[in-house]
Amino acid sequence: MASTSSRPAAVSLDADALTRYLDGSYGDIRREVREILARPEHAPVEAGISTAAYRELVLERMRSLAADGKTGIGFPASVGGMDDVGGAVAAFETLGHGDLSLMVKCGVQFGLWGGAVLHLGTEEHHRAYLPDTITGALPGCFAMTESGHGSDVQSLATTATYDPDTEEFVVNTPDDDARKDYIGNAATHGRIAAVFAQLVVGGESHGVHALVVPLRDEHGATLPGIRIEDCGEKLGLNGVDNGRIWFEEVRVPRTALLNRYADVSPDGTYSSDIENANRRFFTMLGTLVQGRVCVGGAGAAAAKNALTIAVRHGLRRRQFGPEGGLSEALLLDYRTHQRRLLPRLARSYALNFAQSELLEEFHRVFTDVGSDAETAERDRRRLETFAAGVKALSTWHATDTIQTCREACGGLGYLAENRFAALKADTDVFTTFEGDNTVLLQLVAKSLLTDYKDQFEVLDAPGMVRFVADQTIDTIVEKSLARQLVGAIADVIPGIDDTPRDVREREYQIELMRWREEHIIGSVARRLKRGMDAGMGPFEVFGACQDHVVAAAHAHVERVVLEAFARAVDACSDTALKVTLDRLCDLYALSAIEADRGWFLEHGRMSAQRSKRITREVNALCAELREEAGPLVDAFGIPDAVIAAPIAT
Amino acid sequence: MASTSSRPAAVSLDADALTRYLDGSYGDIRREVREILARPEHAPVEAGISTAAYRELVLERMRSLAADGKTGIGFPASVGGMDDVGGAVAAFETLGHGDLSLMVKCGVQFGLWGGAVLHLGTEEHHRAYLPDTITGALPGCFAMTESGHGSDVQSLATTATYDPDTEEFVVNTPDDDARKDYIGNAATHGRIAAVFAQLVVGGESHGVHALVVPLRDEHGATLPGIRIEDCGEKLGLNGVDNGRIWFEEVRVPRTALLNRYADVSPDGTYSSDIENANRRFFTMLGTLVQGRVCVGGAGAAAAKNALTIAVRHGLRRRQFGPEGGLSEALLLDYRTHQRRLLPRLARSYALNFAQSELLEEFHRVFTDVGSDAETAERDRRRLETFAAGVKALSTWHATDTIQTCREACGGLGYLAENRFAALKADTDVFTTFEGDNTVLLQLVAKSLLTDYKDQFEVLDAPGMVRFVADQTIDTIVEKSLARQLVGAIADVIPGIDDTPRDVREREYQIELMRWREEHIIGSVARRLKRGMDAGMGPFEVFGACQDHVVAAAHAHVERVVLEAFARAVDACSDTALKVTLDRLCDLYALSAIEADRGWFLEHGRMSAQRSKRITREVNALCAELREEAGPLVDAFGIPDAVIAAPIAT
Repeated sequence: MASTSSRPAAVSLDADALTRYLDGSYGDIRREVREILARPEHAPVEAGISTAAYRELVLERMRSLAADGKTGIGFPASVGGMDDVGGAVAAFETLGHGDLSLMVKCGVQFGLWGGAVLHLGTEEHHRAYLPDTITGALPGCFAMTESGHGSDVQSLATTATYDPDTEEFVVNTPDDDARKDYIGNAATHGRIAAVFAQLVVGGESHGVHALVVPLRDEHGATLPGIRIEDCGEKLGLNGVDNGRIWFEEVRVPRTALLNRYADVSPDGTYSSDIENANRRFFTMLGTLVQGRVCVGGAGAAAAKNALTIAVRHGLRRRQFGPEGGLSEALLLDYRTHQRRLLPRLARSYALNFAQSELLEEFHRVFTDVGSDAETAERDRRRLETFAAGVKALSTWHATDTIQTCREACGGLGYLAENRFAALKADTDVFTTFEGDNTVLLQLVAKSLLTDYKDQFEVLDAPGMVRFVADQTIDTIVEKSLARQLVGAIADVIPGIDDTPRDVREREYQIELMRWREEHIIGSVARRLKRGMDAGMGPFEVFGACQDHVVAAAHAHVERVVLEAFARAVDACSDTALKVTLDRLCDLYALSAIEADRGWFLEHGRMSAQRSKRITREVNALCAELREEAGPLVDAFGIPDAVIAAPIAT
Repeated sequence: MASTSSRPAAVSLDADALTRYLDGSYGDIRREVREILARPEHAPVEAGISTAAYRELVLERMRSLAADGKTGIGFPASVGGMDDVGGAVAAFETLGHGDLSLMVKCGVQFGLWGGAVLHLGTEEHHRAYLPDTITGALPGCFAMTESGHGSDVQSLATTATYDPDTEEFVVNTPDDDARKDYIGNAATHGRIAAVFAQLVVGGESHGVHALVVPLRDEHGATLPGIRIEDCGEKLGLNGVDNGRIWFEEVRVPRTALLNRYADVSPDGTYSSDIENANRRFFTMLGTLVQGRVCVGGAGAAAAKNALTIAVRHGLRRRQFGPEGGLSEALLLDYRTHQRRLLPRLARSYALNFAQSELLEEFHRVFTDVGSDAETAERDRRRLETFAAGVKALSTWHATDTIQTCREACGGLGYLAENRFAALKADTDVFTTFEGDNTVLLQLVAKSLLTDYKDQFEVLDAPGMVRFVADQTIDTIVEKSLARQLVGAIADVIPGIDDTPRDVREREYQIELMRWREEHIIGSVARRLKRGMDAGMGPFEVFGACQDHVVAAAHAHVERVVLEAFARAVDACSDTALKVTLDRLCDLYALSAIEADRGWFLEHGRMSAQRSKRITREVNALCAELREEAGPLVDAFGIPDAVIAAPIAT
């Protein structure tokens, strides 16, 4: 068994109080959704269900959520909603504890299709489509991705050409590469779609815009000019009907254009308040942020289910033990077992608080009416960066944690009844949908390198490289360089480790992470500039630093998450909870630093002695938190009926 | 795009020649099995198949393999086999490219059940059971694991009590914790089982022994006293019928005891050539080594399928690209993409050659008749350690690589038709069956710490701790300490990095890995001794170092794998292949060292400058090998019909 620290464990942790603290501002909504998921009609779907039956069941469950009034939260009161965008995301995230096909189906229907109508359309579109969208009576699709273009949305090849004679748009799929692919709700249920296409007016292309295009009649028959193919079985999420769509000269009225940011007059004059085409594109794309906030939150929720199961199993299952002992040792008494589960438990807490801050910021930005345009736009950029970063870390965390928890439950974890089968399969795509994580981290890095400048939204990778190269390095990495200098001096004073700072000191942990982030950003900027100075093309320069760029973003997000956790610890007024949260925060920070200790050592920011000290401290924190591991997963507040794993309930 | 090195790429790599080199001694058998798997009757199972239908299909396919003469390779010619134990494992490993339920079903039937009869039984058992086992006419089970005891086999609770009056054993399941659990072939097809139980003779328990117990009659009806329950749906491998078995006072004749290592006379006298009960137990358990060799090889095979799919996709799929370029860039031209796939490709090659050596050693040890008992036993210990280590690394490699490949194929990788669904689900349990990897690495560490001493087999964890503590540290870590001294001296000479050794020098890479291994073993030994000296109990001492013990084993296996790869490079007589293999070996070694650079820096074995240099070299190697990535996966030799992924064929 791992040695225990001399620090006392909190004797009795109040799991309910901790649940309330984790739930944050949207506690009521989260609790209501958890209670709904615990009802028998949301019981786990049997493992052998046919795909056809699963899809119908999910549609039915989605409509039952609508009947409960939980699907209109984020929509305007004028169309039957509750005008609470933050609450809508909180409800959606909480669905991540339950059947994930249901969650994704809801995401497609209310977030993507409903969100496109809401954010890209105007009053008339809202009135026409949103009431039936909210009830689920009108299943809709978000037809953006094409077979040839996933991440690179700006290169979509579907066209919508304006015909002034009939005042219609003609929507067309030029080739198989341009078919809409992987579209949720398309294979079976979708009646209508927001279709993203290159808008061509008077022979001129104005870039990607969205139009509403009907797909099927009320009997489910495909409309003329529409061809739909089923994507077939997937690794998971088989309750969602993904399909491919081809448009053959499909005509829709002029008013089908979702015209909040751009319009076409009857005579064929294109107009937009946003003159720059790139900027317009990114403004429209900005509405995707909600999807990213939701997926990150749902992935984090699913990881909590896995941790609940594995920790409870580790507190029941015995194996081997001391000679002459009364019983064998509990799995969670073994250090390797603690090491597998407890740092991930700490990271779940960290991401919980970061996600809460993200959600509050999301709500603020999306309901902000008082700020000037420039501030509002800058806020949106920051929000997009924040959301992209947290989405990437949360979904990777989900994949990693669910896998580790499965392994920690051995063969029992491999039985479908213990839920890891569905958890693994259904969450697996989270790392690559709503933005591939690696691509998202590159977006984060671009924001950091350009300091969220207005130019950001018009910058693709080469544009960003040119932008950075045009700056004096000082402008970008001023702070960074200053800090490095301080760091370097502090580290070369002989005997610095003789009077070491406590590795559990929060400010020390944050400083380490901030130093790393700024150092990497600074050196990426210098490499970009050097590459351009050496005459390489911007695409090549970016490519040569790509792994470095991703590392910069990763370091940034880890620091942002730590600061969010630190604020949550500081703000906690319950002394007992605070002690525990403080330890969890230490474990999150120190295990993250330990995982990247190669970097800190390489850059002279940490001595070997200090590095080994951190490893010992992670072990000690695991031993301390092992005593509270049960209540710490209870505090996730997931009802037994939702956990639904015989080994954990 | 990543910068390319100035070293020239091999212009045209002969994939066929490379296949032959990878296949090694068992090329013919491997090729035959691949060709069989490419036949239409082995086409991938449709994603929506019912579990009942899948199980029947797998049984049918297993019998068709038997009809092809591929299932008796490892059995004695006297019972219809071919007396080629190494060939049998090679055939089994190769099945890892196909449907993994079929592979596991074969593993249960021929490896576990057939292997128990072969290795633990005597002539009479061979004649009675093996002919029908080889044809698949007699489906058998290996009933070892119990609900309460997975890894800790010595604590099994099922009993087999000798009744001298009737000359029978009475097999009994005392409670639900002692039911046999997760037994392959049990739920539907198994007619007979090798049951592991505590042997009680004349009121005295002699430890775990195996007996043959019939389960069902020829019509499939369960026999009196036998109760069987279906384990139900699993995360994967649903073509294998796992079940739970309870025995209620089931009587079997005295001759049902598999009596190679111990016997009971009619009057109830227990006898064994191996006096020590622990030693006897581990000798019997040693026959499990074949399963570990097979599972490691099969996991490595499945990882090759995943890499073939992802690399081919990366060489076709384009996304973004330089402005004004004729086309977008290939995914594999991006450094982040290279970084994800190519080090794993190199590791696949490394494990291939290590597995080949393991297989040759396995064949040698199992056919060895000339050695004296002590040498033979020592050889078996070494083989068990080697097999346990390679199994752990190969199966973790499979889980990690298949996941990464899925992500590298984005949404397309999530479609069942592109095979990752089955690859992921079916291989997932490999890390925890045939020995949990974390437990296996602890076995490896024990061997290292006791230097494969005869005492090894009687040592559980506490025993090992006591053994180590009783040695003078010098005995155990003599070499280790000497090396550390040299290392330390070399590293403190100022300016050592001014004339650095080439990081691509093989001996340098091996030296780094060897130094790490010996350093960790030495410090674990010192910690164990210190703990005992301080009066802690051996179980506690071991627990406090458990993560350290696992790290020692991991470092050992990585070094062993590198040396195997290095020997394969040296032995290659084809100059062009040798250049490529040499690079792959560099990439394996340097990416492994890079991944653990925190440790090397912490222990002063590498300067920060050298560490950064290694990262740059990994990037350069990725760029060089990117040019040969296509042929490098072609060389795995997996037929298109077996790959069976539309994005890769």
